[in-house]
Amino acid sequence: MPELRFDPFKGRWVNVSPARAARPTDLGGGDAACPFCPGSESETPPEITAVRPADSAADTPGWRLRVVPNRYPALTPEGVAAARAVGVHRAMEAIGRHEVVIETPDHETDLDALAPEQMAQVVRTVRDRLTLLEQDPAHAFVLIFRNWGARAGASLAHPHSQILAMPVVPELVAREVANSVAYLRRHGRPLAVDMLHHELEVRSRIVDDADGFVVLVPFAAAFPCELAVYPREPAASFRELTEAQVPALAAVLQRTVARLKHTLHDPDYNIVLHTAPNPAAVDTVSADANAAAYHWHLEIVPRLPRVDGYEWATGLHVNVESPEAAARRLRGSG
Amino acid sequence: MPELRFDPFKGRWVNVSPARAARPTDLGGGDAACPFCPGSESETPPEITAVRPADSAADTPGWRLRVVPNRYPALTPEGVAAARAVGVHRAMEAIGRHEVVIETPDHETDLDALAPEQMAQVVRTVRDRLTLLEQDPAHAFVLIFRNWGARAGASLAHPHSQILAMPVVPELVAREVANSVAYLRRHGRPLAVDMLHHELEVRSRIVDDADGFVVLVPFAAAFPCELAVYPREPAASFRELTEAQVPALAAVLQRTVARLKHTLHDPDYNIVLHTAPNPAAVDTVSADANAAAYHWHLEIVPRLPRVDGYEWATGLHVNVESPEAAARRLRGSG
Repeated sequence: MPELRFDPFKGRWVNVSPARAARPTDLGGGDAACPFCPGSESETPPEITAVRPADSAADTPGWRLRVVPNRYPALTPEGVAAARAVGVHRAMEAIGRHEVVIETPDHETDLDALAPEQMAQVVRTVRDRLTLLEQDPAHAFVLIFRNWGARAGASLAHPHSQILAMPVVPELVAREVANSVAYLRRHGRPLAVDMLHHELEVRSRIVDDADGFVVLVPFAAAFPCELAVYPREPAASFRELTEAQVPALAAVLQRTVARLKHTLHDPDYNIVLHTAPNPAAVDTVSADANAAAYHWHLEIVPRLPRVDGYEWATGLHVNVESPEAAARRLRGSG
Repeated sequence: MPELRFDPFKGRWVNVSPARAARPTDLGGGDAACPFCPGSESETPPEITAVRPADSAADTPGWRLRVVPNRYPALTPEGVAAARAVGVHRAMEAIGRHEVVIETPDHETDLDALAPEQMAQVVRTVRDRLTLLEQDPAHAFVLIFRNWGARAGASLAHPHSQILAMPVVPELVAREVANSVAYLRRHGRPLAVDMLHHELEVRSRIVDDADGFVVLVPFAAAFPCELAVYPREPAASFRELTEAQVPALAAVLQRTVARLKHTLHDPDYNIVLHTAPNPAAVDTVSADANAAAYHWHLEIVPRLPRVDGYEWATGLHVNVESPEAAARRLRGSG
């Protein structure tokens, strides 16, 4: 059984999940058959939802997108949702959901090369899974992320995203939310709104600004060519993404991934959605405070070599490229 | 000029240091001459201190250990120590010291293979540099770490550690200190003491326990075979390491590095010293609270592949090996 363990020194939960060590890989030289390709539907647990012709049966070929439970889950649906003390530590069964969004039948097509309507379908599916999973108040947070390439943590080459619906809020997101709530209380304006206002005025870190979305290199970026994607109309939860915004965000993401590939010669990369904690999982006062103060965004980090090695152990990141220089490179005005 | 930038969302400082991108590497296929080998003393800035025969001149061969300024520093001694507002962010010149401890003249000898008295000299030198650098109240924290191998962030193969004397406390260390102070206030006992008491009773995560030091896999370890080294007699600062403890810690470290190499087939790894913030940099009330509550320790993390890639972005680490199984493997009773 996977477990969540709380570290009282660092103030964070860690997911201890030995089953994930057994997951197969076809990156780095393996030649295992891809379990995400059409024809291998029986290699995954039965699909949760799919985009497929009305006359085709579940778990058969013909689909354009599938959502399936992760076969090597970091969280599982069964168990007891109660923390127990272990000395100074706490532990609980890692109850939740771990799903995989298989984004395309095509084994080799990354996001930037998908048909625009396929990319829009990926964005729509992710929003809809978030909405559905947040109906369960046991899901304190729904973490949605995408690893592209072995260096980014992917074990399979086939394009996919992952969804973790979990009983705790990840430490860095919890901190962002708390800092945003405190800022709003102090200044009367949301932190992300003030940040965007400043960035759009200065423009030296803006990489893309069209279709209602802003792509920028954060002022205190921890990694070279790190990017954030913010909607111009801020909203706390990715659930609030409108149908009109879906194709716009899809287009922005395609441009941004293409830009990373062009500038950095096809790097491995991660995309992580930062969205408000599930309002159904907290009291209404907290839910209202989060809704007013926090703003969803995407964080995109290319996984370049030569990151100093002690950073995970101290939280002090050394970024060897200035965010302004990174923005110039990514804009192509380098 | 390297800069420190404060991220108000994540509540942490980031070191933006473009000069470090230019540092050379002889790992990963380069055949550049090693600037840390005897005969290349002019390739480093003039030495700060060294262990060398009394009749030998500075910056000439014959030394057994050298401490030199880092030629590609993340922090520099010159500049103005004042934060300025940049929109919602803050920035300041990265003032401080960045030093390299060249641990041996031998290009290829890792810690475990050093002569015991040489290893003791490394430990003693690090303690003495910490003590000296903390005389300057501008150094809020002295970060001491060691990257072994390219995957761990090292750019040069020659055995060395690094010292960063900086004007801010790294986020994770600050959090450990704050949580330790809060725990002592609530429970009347230090967090590390209670943790060690529990671990020594349960023993399932203990890897080594001799010569006054305990080596254990933390209960909420974020990485497979992550280790922590604690003195049995806790102390807040590594400065308090006694002459009697020096050879004991040296021996424990040699055994532990050898154990990692044996169990994990010569992995890249990081060692990071967590010690109390410089008491000279804070008011006496805070300094006293930290001294009573916090305890120095070493964190050692082998850099294994297949770490999930979104962890840096969320603070939610997924550890694919249970700490108890890791301890069994490392003890050789796996």
